[in-house]
Amino acid sequence: MKLARIKDPESEKIIRGTVKADSVETESGRFGLSKVELLTPVTPSKIICVGLNYKDHISETGAEAPEDPSFFFKPPSATVAPGNPIKITEDKRYDPEGEVAVVIEKKCRNVKIADALDYIWGYTGLNDVTNRDAQDWEQNWVRAKGFDTAAPLGPFLVTPHEVELPISFELEVNGSTRQSSDTSNLIFGLPELISELSSFMTLERGDVISTGTPRGVAPIERGDKVKLKLNGIGNLENPVQY
Amino acid sequence: MKLARIKDPESEKIIRGTVKADSVETESGRFGLSKVELLTPVTPSKIICVGLNYKDHISETGAEAPEDPSFFFKPPSATVAPGNPIKITEDKRYDPEGEVAVVIEKKCRNVKIADALDYIWGYTGLNDVTNRDAQDWEQNWVRAKGFDTAAPLGPFLVTPHEVELPISFELEVNGSTRQSSDTSNLIFGLPELISELSSFMTLERGDVISTGTPRGVAPIERGDKVKLKLNGIGNLENPVQY
Repeated sequence: MKLARIKDPESEKIIRGTVKADSVETESGRFGLSKVELLTPVTPSKIICVGLNYKDHISETGAEAPEDPSFFFKPPSATVAPGNPIKITEDKRYDPEGEVAVVIEKKCRNVKIADALDYIWGYTGLNDVTNRDAQDWEQNWVRAKGFDTAAPLGPFLVTPHEVELPISFELEVNGSTRQSSDTSNLIFGLPELISELSSFMTLERGDVISTGTPRGVAPIERGDKVKLKLNGIGNLENPVQY
Repeated sequence: MKLARIKDPESEKIIRGTVKADSVETESGRFGLSKVELLTPVTPSKIICVGLNYKDHISETGAEAPEDPSFFFKPPSATVAPGNPIKITEDKRYDPEGEVAVVIEKKCRNVKIADALDYIWGYTGLNDVTNRDAQDWEQNWVRAKGFDTAAPLGPFLVTPHEVELPISFELEVNGSTRQSSDTSNLIFGLPELISELSSFMTLERGDVISTGTPRGVAPIERGDKVKLKLNGIGNLENPVQY
C-alpha cells in the first residue's frame, strides 16, 4: 500500500488514505491527488539520520568511513510536507541531501539484525537539508540540520511488499540530476541500522530513520525547485524560498 | 502552581494535577503524593540541551567557552519519570549532570530576548545522564546522550510566579553533594537561549530546554541513588540499575 496523509478538502480534518494511480481513497471519499493538500506521511516522535553511509559521499566530504554508523537527530519541527517550501537564509550555504527513509511500524528495542525487517512500516523520502556553514562549527548539528524546513518528508509511505529493493533514487534541482544512487550502496544497511539504534534507544511507531546521502552535494538558491525522485515511492518536490 | 502528571490509581488513566504540600489535586480527587505514580511533568516533542553553559564545568572538561550556545538534542524516548531507574551498562562510564530545565508554554518562533520570559510555562529538573565513552568518539551525541533513561525529567512543572530566580540546585549521589550551583551562573541565560533557538526552529508547547550543568561531573555505578534537588521545584530521584 501507498499511504498518504492529507487534509480533507471539506472538513479540513487530517485524514489518512491509500494512493491509487492519481487519486487517494479515504474514509471521506476519493480525491484527486492534485486536489488535496498532502501532509508528511507520518509524524515521527524522532528522526534519526545517518551520516557518511555512502562511500562516494564520504570521498567528496574528505571524511573517513566510520567504524560504526554515525547518527544525528532532526526534530519533528523540521519536517516539511511535499510541495511546501524549504526556507533558507541569504547569508548561509544550504545543501539538499536526497535520502531513502524507513518508517518504524511498532515500538521496539533490542531488535536483532535477522528480525529487523519485521519492524519496518514502510519507506519514504527525506531531504536532509543542511546549513553547511553551521555544520562547520557545531559539535552537534542542531542549527545545521534542525532548523525549520530542514526535513522535507514524503511524499508517501510505501509498505515493504510494494517496494522493490534496492530502492533507487535521484535528486534533481531545477530538472538537473545531482545525485543518483540506490540502497544497495549503503555501507550500513537497514537491518544493521535498526538493530544498532534499538540496542540503546526505543524506536516508536512512526519514527523515521533516514539512511544517508550519496555523492553530489551542492548548494541551493532561492527560487530553485528540488525534487527527490524515489523509485516505487514517488517524488518529493519542494521549492526554495527565503 | 506546581503541576504534576500522574497515573490515576483507580482508572490507570494519565491525568494532570496541582501539587499542594504532600498531595496532588486532580479532577479525579486528591491523592497523597506517596500513593501515586508520578510521570514526567510534560511530554516534550523535543528536548534541547545546552552544553558548556557554566564556567566551572567548562574548566573541568578542558573545553573552551563557546561564542554561541552549544546545543544538542535528546529524544523524547530518553525521558524517565521521577523514581524510575537510570539504566546503565557495565562496560561504559555514565555520568549524571544536574540541570534546570525550562518548559515552553506556547508555540513560538523568532522570540526577542525581551519577550522570551512570556513563553515560559515553567521550570523543572533534568538529569543529563551521559555515556562518556560514546561522547568521546561520536560527532553527534546520539548514543552518548540519547539512550533510553538518559533524561530523568521532573519532578514537577513549577510556573514562573512561584519560582524564585535564580534557581539554586544540587546533585547528590548516595546523599553526598557533587554539584551545587544556581542559574545566575549560566553563561547564556534563559531569554538568550529561547531567543537563539527560536531564531531557527519552532518551539512547541511542552518542549524542554535544559540549561546546562555546573562542575562536579563524575561516574555513577549500579545501586547508586541520584537526587537532583531544585529549590522551589522539588527533588528528582532515580536509582541506577543495569
